Amino acid sequence: MEVVFLGTTAAIPTAKRAHTAIALRYEGEVILWDCGEGVQRQLIKSGISYMRISKIFITHLHGDHFLGLPGLIQTLGFAGRTEALEIYGPPGIEELVSAMLKLGYFELSFEVRVGELDESFKLRDERYTISALRVEHGLPAFGLVFEEKKGRRFLREKAEALGIPPGPLYKKLQRGESIVFEGRVISPEEVLGEQKKGFKVVYSGDTRPVKSVERACGDALLIHDSTFDHTLAEEAKERLHSTCVEAAQLARRGNARILYLTHISPRYRNAKLLEEQAREVFPESYVAEDFAVVNLQNLKKERGWWD
Amino acid sequence: MEVVFLGTTAAIPTAKRAHTAIALRYEGEVILWDCGEGVQRQLIKSGISYMRISKIFITHLHGDHFLGLPGLIQTLGFAGRTEALEIYGPPGIEELVSAMLKLGYFELSFEVRVGELDESFKLRDERYTISALRVEHGLPAFGLVFEEKKGRRFLREKAEALGIPPGPLYKKLQRGESIVFEGRVISPEEVLGEQKKGFKVVYSGDTRPVKSVERACGDALLIHDSTFDHTLAEEAKERLHSTCVEAAQLARRGNARILYLTHISPRYRNAKLLEEQAREVFPESYVAEDFAVVNLQNLKKERGWWD
Repeated sequence: MEVVFLGTTAAIPTAKRAHTAIALRYEGEVILWDCGEGVQRQLIKSGISYMRISKIFITHLHGDHFLGLPGLIQTLGFAGRTEALEIYGPPGIEELVSAMLKLGYFELSFEVRVGELDESFKLRDERYTISALRVEHGLPAFGLVFEEKKGRRFLREKAEALGIPPGPLYKKLQRGESIVFEGRVISPEEVLGEQKKGFKVVYSGDTRPVKSVERACGDALLIHDSTFDHTLAEEAKERLHSTCVEAAQLARRGNARILYLTHISPRYRNAKLLEEQAREVFPESYVAEDFAVVNLQNLKKERGWWD
Repeated sequence: MEVVFLGTTAAIPTAKRAHTAIALRYEGEVILWDCGEGVQRQLIKSGISYMRISKIFITHLHGDHFLGLPGLIQTLGFAGRTEALEIYGPPGIEELVSAMLKLGYFELSFEVRVGELDESFKLRDERYTISALRVEHGLPAFGLVFEEKKGRRFLREKAEALGIPPGPLYKKLQRGESIVFEGRVISPEEVLGEQKKGFKVVYSGDTRPVKSVERACGDALLIHDSTFDHTLAEEAKERLHSTCVEAAQLARRGNARILYLTHISPRYRNAKLLEEQAREVFPESYVAEDFAVVNLQNLKKERGWWD
């Protein structure tokens, strides 16, 4: 699994930072979290096929988080997409998408399905869930949580002790099904151990530091609003954003594994300052840059997380 | 005066080519011809201040020519613009802009004035005119003509022969006003010669080769649709675009000064092929690349055009 930062600016783009968009690449599927203007070219430059996008989540209805949608939808049409595209967002998302589908002349070759987020939202895929968190940004705004579903650990030594030969019977037991072996029913309970951990990614969207994100970010890769550095704490409060230090404090309190700071104000030509301030509170803090790729498999291997 | 290519792709962007947009820089003012997605960052990367944009012309209502508008408008608002912004486009432009101004939550600090193009459209500034040409693209579509207004040549030797001292009286005569000198009325006719030529830039928008553009492009820098190379002439016809050779033939017939080929299909990784084919017909043919700057003052000096 990879998290790819496609745009990391706040409100106004810069030569180095495009409008907000984050791609989650999971087993060949691409899920977008926010979809700022220019997302098509950011995807192309990242080597990510826009044809693989299955679902797009919009955290809130500020233009810098969704104005890449109409162009992306039209391009998917030009490219001959036929599978439905799912778009989720806060109340208002249906009217917004419907207005976007009327901008100019084009015909759509695929269906656009729109769903509304609320704090009880949970999308259940076979392999993962995505849920929404209410956050605080002065308008209906959500954070997002991706959680990989993992089975329980398979205790091979126990299966071997029972004399079961490796192969299809192991697979069945791993999937939680009972088997019949040499006339005896063996239940998965006999060979399955503790629950395995899956990847977990939490994104705050634009927000003040809030409890919902803090409670959700345990063990996660946390991507948090970090529009301002700590000397501008008052401005962050007024504009309903967060500082890098507030993000780091929240990551520490919530026991996040690693923190990516994003939505960086264009005033910072070099955002290392934000990283340095955050690391004093939470050492695993990094400023997200456009095109940065975080490989969760590698982190798992190197750090032993999500195991 | 400069023409800056901000986006030169056809329909789908590439790593090197953004969606269509052309900036005319004239005496501190910036006029946009088309406004594709990503135009804000293209402007920033070109070192052109978006705050200087006075007028935006949309040639037709295909998304790749206007989807940079909503983000640009919102950014101008964030940046504190107060002067009105003028937007011109084909019938439907008012509903389009009005729909764009309702996308998401934002407040506008300036007025957006919208005007409709037709084939008799002529915007008359003190220093230039911009007029619209009907073109052929399967929907209401326009080409655009920028013409600098220039006065008549001042015949200094005649003024000197009349004994008029250099200074404010020369200026008045140059402006076409009569003066009284030593009790005698001197009319500008006595000291003004032939009409001076001004800069002229013609843009076809997306189109088949058409007479209106051919008739307008005499003496001009012509920017023409060149989506395909000449081996795809049939496809160009079907899709109501032009090939590089058709553009070059039109430039030759119309006596354009210089031709820039744009709206290049993403299939051409290296568009030099289009340039080579066009030059066999019209030697002054160039493929437009993103961020290419054409300085008309320099062309005037070097080539003696528009003098």
